[in-house]
Amino acid sequence: MAADFPQSNILIDDVGDRSATVRHKIGIDELRPGGTVSGPVMMAVADCALYVAILGEIGIVPLAVTTNLNISFLRKPAADKDIVAECRLIKCGRSLAVGDVLLYSEGNEEPVAHAVGTYAIPPRNDR
Amino acid sequence: MAADFPQSNILIDDVGDRSATVRHKIGIDELRPGGTVSGPVMMAVADCALYVAILGEIGIVPLAVTTNLNISFLRKPAADKDIVAECRLIKCGRSLAVGDVLLYSEGNEEPVAHAVGTYAIPPRNDR
Amino acid sequence: MAADFPQSNILIDDVGDRSATVRHKIGIDELRPGGTVSGPVMMAVADCALYVAILGEIGIVPLAVTTNLNISFLRKPAADKDIVAECRLIKCGRSLAVGDVLLYSEGNEEPVAHAVGTYAIPPRNDR
Amino acid sequence: MAADFPQSNILIDDVGDRSATVRHKIGIDELRPGGTVSGPVMMAVADCALYVAILGEIGIVPLAVTTNLNISFLRKPAADKDIVAECRLIKCGRSLAVGDVLLYSEGNEEPVAHAVGTYAIPPRNDR
Repeated sequence: MAADFPQSNILIDDVGDRSATVRHKIGIDELRPGGTVSGPVMMAVADCALYVAILGEIGIVPLAVTTNLNISFLRKPAADKDIVAECRLIKCGRSLAVGDVLLYSEGNEEPVAHAVGTYAIPPRNDR
Repeated sequence: MAADFPQSNILIDDVGDRSATVRHKIGIDELRPGGTVSGPVMMAVADCALYVAILGEIGIVPLAVTTNLNISFLRKPAADKDIVAECRLIKCGRSLAVGDVLLYSEGNEEPVAHAVGTYAIPPRNDR
Repeated sequence: MAADFPQSNILIDDVGDRSATVRHKIGIDELRPGGTVSGPVMMAVADCALYVAILGEIGIVPLAVTTNLNISFLRKPAADKDIVAECRLIKCGRSLAVGDVLLYSEGNEEPVAHAVGTYAIPPRNDR
Repeated sequence: MAADFPQSNILIDDVGDRSATVRHKIGIDELRPGGTVSGPVMMAVADCALYVAILGEIGIVPLAVTTNLNISFLRKPAADKDIVAECRLIKCGRSLAVGDVLLYSEGNEEPVAHAVGTYAIPPRNDR
């Protein structure tokens, strides 16, 4: 994580079985005025959860890149809770992986955002 | 911009006529290993271009929030060029605004990413 | 269903608890050459699953309309199986509802498509 | 069109220069109660506009398939006007093509819907 997402302060809680859970500490740097976690921070966490889930399936393939991310913001996140992202892969093929991510303010049952993302996985001989 | 996107280093080039152009300086903080601009940086720039275009139409309404952003990554951005985002609004209604954003590495003709976003505009009596 | 989706041959298997399952019989009218279920048929089934899940929560509100649908096609559907769509709502607010849909060729474990959709729910005094 | 979209009544107005315009006659079969063109009909027209624009670039490659379609519904379409879809490709690579589609009720200046779609193009030796 430190190598591939150097700007983010993201920790991996869990990975395996076509899924992953990651978290992002929320501090003053992640907030917008009004005490909301900024949208781009949530996009970064969703993207990272996908990346971790995919690498958990296919191994460390640093050239996997996001081709599409669709995120819906559902509720205002808490300003003082970590953002926790739970990803489950719905396809992990040879060239494309697709996953679904729910983002929560830690401890709340209702998600603050939902994302779907597609990663392109490079052919084996390009790695 | 400094107030609403405090974490971003984004400048407004142009705004008006249902459109906006913004740019983000790219430095070491915005790069991933391999010399690519990170996806979340591009998402932030796209989101910001939408926000500026919408406020250009409806005035300063700080409670406008993104409800959905869909971004497709098309080409590898240059590591040493600004990211320039051009937004045109395709709807700017009373409660929802929708816009389309093309992102470029400055000086290149082919876009590096394309985004579509929806903002919810608060009712006048909630502002 | 007959009133609101008159062109579709869709049946409701289940509805309740913020979710719904619907199915579409697949016959010659739903196939593309090559024996694949056509994309627009799958979009219609996903849209309908969302609609049924939302009306199951809020009651019969005929003016609810789709504002956004994002669908990813994952695998080739079987030509001779019903398409079954399972929707779970991830938000059902006063003015917007968001749901997630997995589509299957009946009897297969891996989904053929995944959709996320947003519906706008009209204010009570407009109904 | 008759071969690949046998269920649709779609005509090609124009194709070339990384773009295409197609139209769908609207009759009683395409309407929902209330006199609105049904969402799935608009999705089908958007998908078809993408397909025509891509084949206009790469030639007749029947195995090109949609991998993702994101559609935003913006305004109520007219019940008695053709739906006209204008697609411009924003990427047409070896394995993926991405395009942007605006849909109009013929004669109206404001679009009724906007879509972005991705097609996977099969490798040359698989065709």
